Amino acid sequence: MIEIVTIGDELLLGHTVDTNAAYISEHLAAAGLRVTRRATVGDDAAAIHAAVNDALARTKVVITTGGLGPTSDDFTKPVIAALYGRELVVDNAYLEKLRVRWRQRGMEMPAANVTQAQIPEGAEIVRNPVGSAQGLALRDDALGLAIMLPGVPHEVRAMTDDFLIPFLLEHVSVRSEPICHHILRTTGIPESLLADRIEDIVRSVAPITVAFLPSYAGTDIRLTSWAAFDQESCVARFREAEAQLRARLGSHIYAIGRTDLSVVVGELLRARKLKVTFAESCTAGLLSKRMTDISGASDYFDAGFITYANGAKQKFLGVDESTIATHGAVSEDVAREMAVGALEAARADVAVAITGIAGPTGGSDSKPVGLVWTALAARDAVRTRSFIMPGDREEVRERAAQMALALLYDYLDE
Amino acid sequence: MIEIVTIGDELLLGHTVDTNAAYISEHLAAAGLRVTRRATVGDDAAAIHAAVNDALARTKVVITTGGLGPTSDDFTKPVIAALYGRELVVDNAYLEKLRVRWRQRGMEMPAANVTQAQIPEGAEIVRNPVGSAQGLALRDDALGLAIMLPGVPHEVRAMTDDFLIPFLLEHVSVRSEPICHHILRTTGIPESLLADRIEDIVRSVAPITVAFLPSYAGTDIRLTSWAAFDQESCVARFREAEAQLRARLGSHIYAIGRTDLSVVVGELLRARKLKVTFAESCTAGLLSKRMTDISGASDYFDAGFITYANGAKQKFLGVDESTIATHGAVSEDVAREMAVGALEAARADVAVAITGIAGPTGGSDSKPVGLVWTALAARDAVRTRSFIMPGDREEVRERAAQMALALLYDYLDE
Repeated sequence: MIEIVTIGDELLLGHTVDTNAAYISEHLAAAGLRVTRRATVGDDAAAIHAAVNDALARTKVVITTGGLGPTSDDFTKPVIAALYGRELVVDNAYLEKLRVRWRQRGMEMPAANVTQAQIPEGAEIVRNPVGSAQGLALRDDALGLAIMLPGVPHEVRAMTDDFLIPFLLEHVSVRSEPICHHILRTTGIPESLLADRIEDIVRSVAPITVAFLPSYAGTDIRLTSWAAFDQESCVARFREAEAQLRARLGSHIYAIGRTDLSVVVGELLRARKLKVTFAESCTAGLLSKRMTDISGASDYFDAGFITYANGAKQKFLGVDESTIATHGAVSEDVAREMAVGALEAARADVAVAITGIAGPTGGSDSKPVGLVWTALAARDAVRTRSFIMPGDREEVRERAAQMALALLYDYLDE
Repeated sequence: MIEIVTIGDELLLGHTVDTNAAYISEHLAAAGLRVTRRATVGDDAAAIHAAVNDALARTKVVITTGGLGPTSDDFTKPVIAALYGRELVVDNAYLEKLRVRWRQRGMEMPAANVTQAQIPEGAEIVRNPVGSAQGLALRDDALGLAIMLPGVPHEVRAMTDDFLIPFLLEHVSVRSEPICHHILRTTGIPESLLADRIEDIVRSVAPITVAFLPSYAGTDIRLTSWAAFDQESCVARFREAEAQLRARLGSHIYAIGRTDLSVVVGELLRARKLKVTFAESCTAGLLSKRMTDISGASDYFDAGFITYANGAKQKFLGVDESTIATHGAVSEDVAREMAVGALEAARADVAVAITGIAGPTGGSDSKPVGLVWTALAARDAVRTRSFIMPGDREEVRERAAQMALALLYDYLDE
């Protein structure tokens, strides 16, 4: 069992969302290392001391992020050194590395950075392959193990994968079997209706536990085996549960695992050697961006159109001015003409269009904020779909992109 | 002083990033309500009990999120009711509201939802204007105040603004003066160099504390007054510190406050009645999406081009095939031709183009992963800029979008 303490006023003040905690938790769990509690404290020596001390008392293993930088608000190293009764000493080899790094960038190292080369006596260095703030590990039979990581997200990601997990697997007792998970992703059915519909299955699969994780992308069903089944029994039990759930839920299940719908759709496009294009109004690039989050998207995506203004819809997609005048920019007819126009303009095999009212302004009684029309055009089909999405501007846009992907998925999956 | 306990296996397993904690923290701080610690626990009755109990012991005010849903993995309500020695009773008025809600959606309420209408005896209801899971508040002289919110982000956002803050201001003693902050956003200078350059100013502004918040967008300098200055002294001291920092850092400071660079740029465009367009390759819509995160962007943004493939760069932006053949798609020349082509095609006043290698594949010795070229074209100017960005695919793309905005900002701000 492991606890995480994330450190930084910016976290407590809500200026920064704590993505590090999520990343570390997820990757540790996948390696059979269970995080049982997290805490967040500010750049405050007493608070860091208390949180690290509490965590060590409970689990004897704590990972911290943040407060390792070169500036005066970075307390993690001196506080944890003091907790372990260690002096801070300059690591000369590391100091030289820092100097070389700065020289390579054509600059002299600022004096502030010398503190970066100080480490608690006896600390082991957790290598940082992508940044200048190294991680540190301190061990003590009485207190246990404290590992300090920096707070910069891409550094934390690199260090977690390359060094933290191997280090923990060497020094921490791991569950004999990792916690097994199996996730079924659903879309198009509200969480509580889903829960109601599969209530008997949820009961019958015990000791596997079932959790419902709603998000803008739909509701994920997570099956978890906390019991010490071996991998093989886990797989067999999950397969059985999955078969029951699929029989009950049919096409609401669009993926297994954490796979994004854009990836599922990308694989279908690649397999069928199809090119897709998007015409986006209210989402203004979000859908295309999501479709290219994964390297290799160029196999099935060449170009997209962001037509935010009515004039752009006419000029780049050939939407009829009178269609907009008659039905409004957020309408089934305009969505359809956008998709058909994008298909032609990009010479793609399939095109998906989105037009909607993301809010907070622009809604009316007949067309409220959240109304989204999507359309799909291919050589053999034109389809449309609309929903009224809940949530704020960001959420409406995210949900609209997901809804467009679902329309594309349903077409490709037939 | 207030603590937050966020609840959910999905948080501890890292499947979900805890945006609720950040949102609540930020909005409470702005109202003078200081969050001193956060904890995250799983869907586990004992862990919820321990975390809420610890938090109440320290601060007598705790806010929880999550675990209020209608499904079997939702423990928050019974655990906190038990902690306060209260029975769960059905709130008939609320039950009826739930039934009406479902009927309006054309469905019968699933049996699982009846538990949603159970509340601890004596609990006050914290209204949820956008979802079916209401919040609950329990008070007790000995234990203090516990407020339970659901876990769905847009519900938490709505409840925080409309109900949580007014409720807390009524029931919790607030600092006589809110904690004052003042943020200066910088770009184009590494954190430690920045710290070094302003070290003497940092010392001289005490008791105001200075924190450095690095992100893909640059490094924010946050000035904080924890002392009980009144608002007027805060403002005077911040103004003085800002003047010193501006004199030292010049154009590295691009905004005051939490304002995104896209908003600063949007305001400049609006004031000057200019229309902007974007031509995006590696960012594939991210920049246009960011520029439209704020309602009203249609004043200065009509259309954008996502030209992921070389053919699309030629077809939609008129990039010369031979330029791509000679210099490669990620080159100064192609970036320039993309910007000039977009300016023409969209009949905009200014166009910005991005082409880069987001990775993880596609790099070479001469053009490593992270290399990004941006170009700006206007009637009176064509400019280009390149950097080699650190980080993974996501970070390179975010940094590339920020770099393109910085190029645009420098042009508009002259």
